[in-house]
Amino acid sequence: MAITRYQNLASILSQRIEQGLYPAGIRLPSIRVLSKEHGVSITTVQQAYRELEDQQLVEARPKSGYFVSPLKTRPELPAVCSMSQCSLSIPQWDQVLEMVGPLKDGEITFVSAAPDVSVSSLRPLTRALSHLSQRHDLRTLSYDDVRGSLELREQIARLLIDSGSHMDAGNIMITNGCREALSIAVRCVCAPGDIVAVESPSFHGSLQLLHGLGMKVLEIPTDPVNGISVEALELALDQWPVKAIMVTPTAHNPLGYNMPLERRQALLKLAQHYDVAIVEDDVYGELSFGYPRPATITSMDDEGRVLLCSSFSKTLAPGLRVGWIAPGSYMNRAVHMKYTGSGSTASLTQLAIVEFIKQGHYHKHVRRMRGQYQRNLAIMTGWITKYFPCGTRISRPQGGCLLWIELDHGIDTQRLNALLAEHNISIAVGAVFSTAGKFHSCMRINYAQPLTADIENAIRQIGVVIHQLLSRSGFGNSVK
Amino acid sequence: MAITRYQNLASILSQRIEQGLYPAGIRLPSIRVLSKEHGVSITTVQQAYRELEDQQLVEARPKSGYFVSPLKTRPELPAVCSMSQCSLSIPQWDQVLEMVGPLKDGEITFVSAAPDVSVSSLRPLTRALSHLSQRHDLRTLSYDDVRGSLELREQIARLLIDSGSHMDAGNIMITNGCREALSIAVRCVCAPGDIVAVESPSFHGSLQLLHGLGMKVLEIPTDPVNGISVEALELALDQWPVKAIMVTPTAHNPLGYNMPLERRQALLKLAQHYDVAIVEDDVYGELSFGYPRPATITSMDDEGRVLLCSSFSKTLAPGLRVGWIAPGSYMNRAVHMKYTGSGSTASLTQLAIVEFIKQGHYHKHVRRMRGQYQRNLAIMTGWITKYFPCGTRISRPQGGCLLWIELDHGIDTQRLNALLAEHNISIAVGAVFSTAGKFHSCMRINYAQPLTADIENAIRQIGVVIHQLLSRSGFGNSVK
Repeated sequence: MAITRYQNLASILSQRIEQGLYPAGIRLPSIRVLSKEHGVSITTVQQAYRELEDQQLVEARPKSGYFVSPLKTRPELPAVCSMSQCSLSIPQWDQVLEMVGPLKDGEITFVSAAPDVSVSSLRPLTRALSHLSQRHDLRTLSYDDVRGSLELREQIARLLIDSGSHMDAGNIMITNGCREALSIAVRCVCAPGDIVAVESPSFHGSLQLLHGLGMKVLEIPTDPVNGISVEALELALDQWPVKAIMVTPTAHNPLGYNMPLERRQALLKLAQHYDVAIVEDDVYGELSFGYPRPATITSMDDEGRVLLCSSFSKTLAPGLRVGWIAPGSYMNRAVHMKYTGSGSTASLTQLAIVEFIKQGHYHKHVRRMRGQYQRNLAIMTGWITKYFPCGTRISRPQGGCLLWIELDHGIDTQRLNALLAEHNISIAVGAVFSTAGKFHSCMRINYAQPLTADIENAIRQIGVVIHQLLSRSGFGNSVK
Repeated sequence: MAITRYQNLASILSQRIEQGLYPAGIRLPSIRVLSKEHGVSITTVQQAYRELEDQQLVEARPKSGYFVSPLKTRPELPAVCSMSQCSLSIPQWDQVLEMVGPLKDGEITFVSAAPDVSVSSLRPLTRALSHLSQRHDLRTLSYDDVRGSLELREQIARLLIDSGSHMDAGNIMITNGCREALSIAVRCVCAPGDIVAVESPSFHGSLQLLHGLGMKVLEIPTDPVNGISVEALELALDQWPVKAIMVTPTAHNPLGYNMPLERRQALLKLAQHYDVAIVEDDVYGELSFGYPRPATITSMDDEGRVLLCSSFSKTLAPGLRVGWIAPGSYMNRAVHMKYTGSGSTASLTQLAIVEFIKQGHYHKHVRRMRGQYQRNLAIMTGWITKYFPCGTRISRPQGGCLLWIELDHGIDTQRLNALLAEHNISIAVGAVFSTAGKFHSCMRINYAQPLTADIENAIRQIGVVIHQLLSRSGFGNSVK
């Protein structure tokens, strides 16, 4: 029996869905677009979509179009952790230090949270850097305003409109990456010994930061889809004299969720009620897959209680070390900390970013990266589902380039990483994302880089070692 | 009467001395060199020098050669301040903030401690920046080792040999300028509430830093030629539980002295005896006029008690924001602070500096700048002597690009600066160099930039306003 046009198109689309090119939940191309792309009639596309609906691969939503159905075989989400007590244990600095050290030759690493900087859409940025240097522009060699380039702060204010905020340059200060912004933010609102409530798991850099500043960390149960439990947080605020809440509501590191709007509002209300500051890490905000990107908690705040921290490290390149803080009502303190902590920020990279944005490259580049990461996510999720043992739980990121994986509880990812070192592969071990001894069987991997056959082989190899560890453990050998 | 050859030469030399081309105390060209330069015999040069000796313009020192005599009319040195009590008063942040803000249009400023970055010997650096960017070198866009570029640390270790230190890359960590190095150093050895002994006057950035970190500042009397009083420091260490001593022994900011070798040794011995750490700010070290540059206190320390902080901000360009710390025995803590405080340092500027040094431009450039600053110093000292009131006291820098001026005690330089603003001129007011309310009649000016007629006019204008203030005060008007 000859295959009809619509069956052919349905088959192409179903293959793309199965290969993960159109991940679960995403909107599929419109009927008009597919008709043009494949040179077939509107009716043919409609028939193809009806066929896929029958196969329960896609869902029609009135006035919105067609969406990929949630997968039946979709891996489970990582579990939510229970509430921890205040922790002051010595942090896992040795493990973190190993993670941030230089790469070994030929090492395939999934450790860092770095974006892909090899893409051609960054060329105009390196060109701008080159031109500014070539011109021997004295601004690039001189001390800048300690708050950073006025032009860049104006551009950032414009970019922030997408996140729902209406600021001007005066509300923003440039920092050495988001890291310095976070360090300043925490010190603006807390003194050593104060308690800071955080998501669990949390970015290890933030946990180390809080430890380094002598803060006590209170890990709040965090849902892999909805984010920090506002209910658990309320109990915590009732019980402890918490001074600040530190959250990454958009494209969370490591879980990848976007906290729903109403939960952001609830969180802010809670902070107002208990008079607590919020440090909002928005470093992955612009890499949220959906459009428009979620509004920041900062944008809902009219008291200057929320301190927004972000950078161009994930959207453009981390080596630039250009971040910013919008510290709400704490600007004076923040400027003092910046002045005394590192002085002004390097001028050349700031001015190059200004050029890059002004010439219209920024939005194009970020759109491209969002697409790449979303495609990579589907492929990587597919590989892990394929190579890792049954029962492996995987996060469902709504932005960014990081995947959180929960293995069988018999597996210690620290031990796994030591074995992987023999294969010149490294992962970020789960234990460093908690100060309370959690997540020993978890790991975080980065899927930003182009997913070559080498990467697939590395993922397969990780799967092999996990299977070995499990079977050894099954035969009674101790898994350390 | 015809002028003889030796009289002619003597007249040339005395003019140069009077114009400040050969400043007081400096070694004059050797007899052999002058003989060649002027095409005269050795005997003629010897006669010329004898003539100048008779005029008391030069002094012969056995086996060393001829030196310019201390000037008879030489302005007096600034006075040494008495010991202050521990201070916890609110620092002059508003004044400092005004100083570090953006320049007004056409403003002539003597405020910052910036070097001259307009010189051609920096061209190879901007070329290196340009080439690295042009190549789209991925290293310039990626996260670097948190300790900084290995190559750059190796080059810095090599540069440090001149300061008497034998280190390797493992002893050094790159920072965002000297400011971040100082902030890390202080936090390595002190906790909030601890007492830090400092020179008086001290760089306002360091004082603000200590205040920002919650330290108590103990200002030790400091001699404008010999540096911090080791005797007064001993009394202080006996009396107070001082945790650290923070000093700038070479080309001090703002006084410009080089602390003599034996006083450096005495300081270290004291620190050992009282088990106190030393934070050594060497940011102007390479700009010491004399050759070889003085050995750092760090180089005399074999216990890892001294934390060396420096940067390329004064030798190359501040806009690069590339500094370093050699934190002695505190490396692990220092790396943690760097990782949590700002993450790795921007890669592009580090790599460009490596190129600049490797291509042999560094020493040539620094030598040139030393010469320029030394010549500028003589000219600027001349202008101030000429335009400022009699009795003005002036420091005698042995390196760097900063002059410290003490006016009649009836003058408040804060008020002076407000009046100068009407002429679009600004100076660094003395008050910010102390936390104890000292130096209200002092000011610091920068003489790095090319000393054009505009600069001379600005200095003349400052003199005019000072004279006005004095005469008003003399006629009974209140000097606020």
